[in-house]
Amino acid sequence: MVVQSVSELPLAKDFSSFISVEASARKKSPLKSLLVFMKGNMISLGGGLPHPSTFPFTELSSVVKSAPAGTTALKDTKKENIETVSVPLDPTDGKVESLAASLQYGGGLGMPSLRNFCKTHIESMHKPQYQDWEVIMTCGNTDSFTKALALLLNRGDYILIEKWAYPTAMETIEPLGITAVPIPVDGEGICPKALRQTLDNWGSEPHQTPENKPRVAYLVPTGQNPTGATMGLQRRRDIMAIAQQHNLIIIEDDPYYYLQFSIDDGWMPSLLSLDTDGRVIRLDSFSKTLAPGCRVGYATMNKQFREYFQFHTEVTVQQPSGFSQAVLAEMLVGHWGQEGYTRYLTERVRIEYLNRSKFLQSCLRKYVNSELISFVEPSAGMFIWLKVHVEKHPRHGQVTDSALMLELFNACIAEDVLLTPGWQFSTKPKPQNADLSKVQEFWFDDEATFLRATFAYADFPQMEKAAQSLGVAVTKAFAA
Amino acid sequence: MVVQSVSELPLAKDFSSFISVEASARKKSPLKSLLVFMKGNMISLGGGLPHPSTFPFTELSSVVKSAPAGTTALKDTKKENIETVSVPLDPTDGKVESLAASLQYGGGLGMPSLRNFCKTHIESMHKPQYQDWEVIMTCGNTDSFTKALALLLNRGDYILIEKWAYPTAMETIEPLGITAVPIPVDGEGICPKALRQTLDNWGSEPHQTPENKPRVAYLVPTGQNPTGATMGLQRRRDIMAIAQQHNLIIIEDDPYYYLQFSIDDGWMPSLLSLDTDGRVIRLDSFSKTLAPGCRVGYATMNKQFREYFQFHTEVTVQQPSGFSQAVLAEMLVGHWGQEGYTRYLTERVRIEYLNRSKFLQSCLRKYVNSELISFVEPSAGMFIWLKVHVEKHPRHGQVTDSALMLELFNACIAEDVLLTPGWQFSTKPKPQNADLSKVQEFWFDDEATFLRATFAYADFPQMEKAAQSLGVAVTKAFAA
Ligand SMILES: Cc1ncc(COP(=O)(O)O)c(C=O)c1O
Ligand SMILES: Cc1ncc(COP(=O)(O)O)c(C=O)c1O
Repeated sequence: MVVQSVSELPLAKDFSSFISVEASARKKSPLKSLLVFMKGNMISLGGGLPHPSTFPFTELSSVVKSAPAGTTALKDTKKENIETVSVPLDPTDGKVESLAASLQYGGGLGMPSLRNFCKTHIESMHKPQYQDWEVIMTCGNTDSFTKALALLLNRGDYILIEKWAYPTAMETIEPLGITAVPIPVDGEGICPKALRQTLDNWGSEPHQTPENKPRVAYLVPTGQNPTGATMGLQRRRDIMAIAQQHNLIIIEDDPYYYLQFSIDDGWMPSLLSLDTDGRVIRLDSFSKTLAPGCRVGYATMNKQFREYFQFHTEVTVQQPSGFSQAVLAEMLVGHWGQEGYTRYLTERVRIEYLNRSKFLQSCLRKYVNSELISFVEPSAGMFIWLKVHVEKHPRHGQVTDSALMLELFNACIAEDVLLTPGWQFSTKPKPQNADLSKVQEFWFDDEATFLRATFAYADFPQMEKAAQSLGVAVTKAFAA
Repeated sequence: MVVQSVSELPLAKDFSSFISVEASARKKSPLKSLLVFMKGNMISLGGGLPHPSTFPFTELSSVVKSAPAGTTALKDTKKENIETVSVPLDPTDGKVESLAASLQYGGGLGMPSLRNFCKTHIESMHKPQYQDWEVIMTCGNTDSFTKALALLLNRGDYILIEKWAYPTAMETIEPLGITAVPIPVDGEGICPKALRQTLDNWGSEPHQTPENKPRVAYLVPTGQNPTGATMGLQRRRDIMAIAQQHNLIIIEDDPYYYLQFSIDDGWMPSLLSLDTDGRVIRLDSFSKTLAPGCRVGYATMNKQFREYFQFHTEVTVQQPSGFSQAVLAEMLVGHWGQEGYTRYLTERVRIEYLNRSKFLQSCLRKYVNSELISFVEPSAGMFIWLKVHVEKHPRHGQVTDSALMLELFNACIAEDVLLTPGWQFSTKPKPQNADLSKVQEFWFDDEATFLRATFAYADFPQMEKAAQSLGVAVTKAFAA
């Protein structure tokens, strides 16, 4: 690959026509315009910052695991592999913000030190292929997704989505009056052919008009939830080519990116890294790499989008938690550094889930009849998408596939193993007035002949026991 | 006051017709419905929780000021008035959540210990007068306000608001296609007569129809931003009576509640505490009492509203930061207790701002010609709303009041004192395409003959200097 200097890279294309009605109406907060005067002898009675003397917090620290080998910050050699991360009281070396600054209002971009860290990380990991990309701190990918939707879509619009999707994404989309257009998936995620067909043929159905042709796709390219599918490089290139051809914005929700099980050939390029136009909004989260309770992530997008995204942040959460950001900044910037963080991802997080994935797969192979339940080996993430071969059921055709799946789900419950019903990931509209909480009486979508298993949480003996129970349940269910 | 037992209190009225199109379409997350199975020997491969062994954080602690006198938790007697708050690694006494639990996904209500603390606090401070009120943790009042709007209002709707308002509120309202209906204010906040008139006469203007009659009022009853006004008890009663008569929901945004300067007769009752119908959504924030960087607050509302509010939380921020909540829970629940927290508010936070308020007022009285600039003494909050008597300006009537105000603002800048231009709090629509960041060239709204001063942040010598400079600036500006 020829490395280009940043200045040789193109600027993002103009996507101003993609901005939603809501976002177009957002204005820079006028309060912030007063900051320019804060120089020289100016005394401000302008801003509304609370007085730091009223903050009861005088120190904040966390004991954290050290980044694997190579970290120089290991301070206490007796306590091996852990170090104390203390948010500085005063902005001493200027590397990270002081506690007082972290606890104050600070603006919607997030804390500078942490944001710069994330920016450098994106730079080295994803090497964006256009000049004017920017990073903004967020409260995690769920919130970022809402903001990306508000940025781009109006009530009545359509959005392209993988046929089986993260339920929260559907729960976000539907109340906004946006319609999901499900695109078939295979073991490598969204199918380019089907995507192209949908776009080429838009207009062939009565509700489809040139005006409402989808302009946005929501994709989870790595370790997709629930299918576990990871798009290969060619698949990614194909999708980006379609995006260019049909002028799509892509929301790349990629919380499982660092949970890639094989990186012998390097990390899989992200869609962001294949984007030369600035059409990808990439969402990264610390939820799966450090801890969900951080409620911190970051989003990468072209400068124009970032501005609106920031305005939206400033009238909602204002900024991610200062406690979270301060601890993360001190750990990542002050202690681990870029390399330490990458090693932590590579050698700890990734390996933990790799081992768990391998183990659950071996258990499933051992205990579950693969004629009745099969799966594609996941190459990233936390999930195995179990395909149930209902066509092998003795009563297949006599009752609906949904009925058979419901029986199997209940058989699992009876055997003390809980799996997530496939219909919960369906992108079809759910039946009106259905009580979705009655999971033992309810299954909709005859195509949802799947159960989602995760290897992320249960311990190894539990996983083995669960696979055994699933084996028993499926045998029983298919016997009747 | 006759104290009623909770069971004698009425249930909230049915406000289901107030739910917006967006909120009505929200469903309980089906993923959460699986939790009921987690008992006995059930093994779950269902949920998608990351494995805690991948969390690098093994301890979290903060040194905090002790609550004033009476706290028993003072551990280190040498370091006076501070104590170390450590989030427990394991859920030992069950009083607060463990670090691992705090760092995990936990659901949109917020951490139970902290939420219970806030609930008890609301109970004792505000004594809600109906049975089925509930508390939900939030990411602060800015975010809560967005969620309250999304709960109640559709594009095209109208909302009642104080004539001078918190700019972020306007920035939230306008992009949603909601129109603010400004109601005149006096030194005690929103005027009941004007409010009643607006509602009684709704329909008298062409755009006003019975269908779009305002159903929601957004009010900041204590230390209002920017006017500093605090509604007296009778005023509060009057407003609640109008709300009942016209069936209004009230969003009570009350971040300055605990910054009341005189509590000799007790704390001023909140609108929540006067509400017997469940029509008040009360927003509390830790931003002004502990620190804005917490990004934690809590909202109190009837059970039905709380459900939708929670669903919305779960598809946006998911939950407030676990770092913030864990430190707050350990400090408030584990150390300070209800009484300690109340003492901290009463004896520290309140007193700090009381002293600051008194000091700035004395400086203004000393240095600024009260014929040219007058103000109502604030009885709560952070702000003094300076009324500029432009009618006394020699060129009054020859140029617009806006032009005179802009001159004064620039005269202030020249004297090195920065005050917030009154127009930034205007609830009139801002001129299209105006560059609001050019504050030295721009002033709109001839009625905005105000400057907002805050006594919250500058130190005392700075405040004195600023008042002096303002005195000079106003004399100069009114001389020309
Ligand atoms: C595809 C996808 N996006 C987003 C999330 C949530 O991420 P965050 O915790 O950053 O909001 C999840 C986790 O459940 C997910 O599977
Ligand atoms: C009236 C009002 N509401 C809300 C806020 C912001 O509160 P929070 O930090 O809880 O979002 C402020 C602070 O500037 C305010 O003045």
